[in-house]
Amino acid sequence: MRIVCYKDKIIKALNSVVKGVASKTTMPILEGILIQTNDKEIKLTTYDLEIGIEYIMDCEVQEQGSTVVNAIMFSEIIRKLPDTEIYISVNEKNLLEIECEGSLYKLATMNPDEFPELPKIEVENSIELEQNTLKNMIRKTIFAVSSEESRPIFTGCLFEIENNKLNVVAVDGFRLALRSIYLNKQTNDFSAVIPGRTLNEVNKIISDSFEPLRIGVAKNQALFEMDNCKVVTRILDGEFLNYKNVIPGNWETRMRVNKNSLQNSFERISLISASSVEKEKKYPVKVQVDIGKVVISCTNQTGDAKEELYVSTEGKNLEAGFNPKYFLDSLKAIDDEEVYVEFGSNISPCLIKSIDNNDYTYMILPIRLKE
Amino acid sequence: MRIVCYKDKIIKALNSVVKGVASKTTMPILEGILIQTNDKEIKLTTYDLEIGIEYIMDCEVQEQGSTVVNAIMFSEIIRKLPDTEIYISVNEKNLLEIECEGSLYKLATMNPDEFPELPKIEVENSIELEQNTLKNMIRKTIFAVSSEESRPIFTGCLFEIENNKLNVVAVDGFRLALRSIYLNKQTNDFSAVIPGRTLNEVNKIISDSFEPLRIGVAKNQALFEMDNCKVVTRILDGEFLNYKNVIPGNWETRMRVNKNSLQNSFERISLISASSVEKEKKYPVKVQVDIGKVVISCTNQTGDAKEELYVSTEGKNLEAGFNPKYFLDSLKAIDDEEVYVEFGSNISPCLIKSIDNNDYTYMILPIRLKE
Repeated sequence: MRIVCYKDKIIKALNSVVKGVASKTTMPILEGILIQTNDKEIKLTTYDLEIGIEYIMDCEVQEQGSTVVNAIMFSEIIRKLPDTEIYISVNEKNLLEIECEGSLYKLATMNPDEFPELPKIEVENSIELEQNTLKNMIRKTIFAVSSEESRPIFTGCLFEIENNKLNVVAVDGFRLALRSIYLNKQTNDFSAVIPGRTLNEVNKIISDSFEPLRIGVAKNQALFEMDNCKVVTRILDGEFLNYKNVIPGNWETRMRVNKNSLQNSFERISLISASSVEKEKKYPVKVQVDIGKVVISCTNQTGDAKEELYVSTEGKNLEAGFNPKYFLDSLKAIDDEEVYVEFGSNISPCLIKSIDNNDYTYMILPIRLKE
Repeated sequence: MRIVCYKDKIIKALNSVVKGVASKTTMPILEGILIQTNDKEIKLTTYDLEIGIEYIMDCEVQEQGSTVVNAIMFSEIIRKLPDTEIYISVNEKNLLEIECEGSLYKLATMNPDEFPELPKIEVENSIELEQNTLKNMIRKTIFAVSSEESRPIFTGCLFEIENNKLNVVAVDGFRLALRSIYLNKQTNDFSAVIPGRTLNEVNKIISDSFEPLRIGVAKNQALFEMDNCKVVTRILDGEFLNYKNVIPGNWETRMRVNKNSLQNSFERISLISASSVEKEKKYPVKVQVDIGKVVISCTNQTGDAKEELYVSTEGKNLEAGFNPKYFLDSLKAIDDEEVYVEFGSNISPCLIKSIDNNDYTYMILPIRLKE
């Protein structure tokens, strides 16, 4: 194998594929990157048996071949080379040689035949999105994904296509995040739960642009297809929460509030709420809605905090306890200037919703207040 | 005590003094900030028994008094308040109240009489510098300070004033960093070893500006005086290395080399040199100077690296081993386009020096190459 390519081009490829490299594995081949030439292209592949990433790029192939080399070491060396042509080849001792100006690096290689094959995917359903749209949907829901491996289905986001609308839902037992957008093209209804880890990696690979991306779903696998790059992932098996049934349809107390003011109040109050000397005890903050105002307060050994905001309110007065982190996570994911915050009783979930449309619903369960 | 001040002003003060707060101490008072009013000013003080920082600022004092409050908690709350007037007072229950728009925070206080007094310093000698000059001198030497507490004197930088010249020297047994500048004013000769930790904190407090700063030295203490802010530190006791005697006066091999090219070569080669599977074994890189070129190479289990640079050389050929990290640290601290690198034998130290003047000398001891 012998190829010549420009640094900036191969770095772009490496930045995408190294995301899929296994860390802390007992199989060194999974820490490798498979380099395969194909006529006038090379294909770079990484695969940790859960997420597989392929990137195809044009380059000058002087001799066909394939090899596997440690991905981190290879990409770090390339990253530090000067911005010019790089010669990459496998020598007679089976070492990968990287040559560039006065630099010559030789790295041990592994047998490409031992590199596990990416699963073949027969896409049954698919949608097309702009990359920045997917980036947005991921950023605005992924924080609510569960990290508890005991209920694996909730470690992923539900992607549900229903009546040409894409709903992305994450839930962790304490809160729920739901984002929806309408799709441009007529699409079959289907759904799949994509692992949170995959979405994090895909999020790093996709750009904040209007470039298209296709998400294809097969029986056990999903596929994210971009221009040169393809990400293959398993999908999570099991029954996702029937989320529509758990989101309350009506409220007893509602306030309309400036999103940033509310977020800033929760940020400050978190300093006191999170500073408890008894780390294990969760100190909820108390939310009190009265006519025309909301008071958020918290008391513990460190001190005493009170935040008062003048807001427009409707319905009954209310007093309930919440973990301020859940409010903060949700509010940070909202770009609107104002939001509705809806409550039922002091033991019902609280909803944060858009003033203008149904693009998002964040649901937060209350915590019992200490007497 | 009751004061009113603008957020931006008190934040500036807090940013300076919180650097002196003790972390991980069994004395909570040392995690505190002493707030004292004095007519139309307040003084903020922190002191961890090693470094003491005082900051004086004008503000509206409505009621004189003093208190001690947890520095981190206090400054974090202030930091998150809106950009406007803040009311700070001590209430009848001895809680510090922070009021700002709809926010009210109450924090436990400590007895100001228990706050340790900063040492009184009778300055015997002093110099004046611009703040950016000191910043520069610190940045360009501090990396060579020893972290081994077994020889405490080398955990500081020597500040030596000699013939109106300031020499700052750091040494850790493997390398030495020396920076010199001429002083504008006639000054007595004197010297003091300032703890590296103090210099790190001072470096964060001073600005990258031409604002003046005075360094005053007393018997056991030193003082950094800025406009509103004063840093007091102990100085290190003991005999510093007689550094002038250990820096070789002449060379057998010398090369003149582009600083960035050499730095980039060492950066790349460090990837291989630092990646050894046997983490404990230090793999030196081999530096070979031949007529008109230098070759830097390294071989270990991970791979094989060779960097070749065409440079102008004088004197004998040379082959010696070095830890590339020491070269990198020194080269990163140099702003010149070209440097001299001087060698004696393969067991003598290597020097990196300026082409044009005597502003700096970096010395690196060789490591024996494995055969």
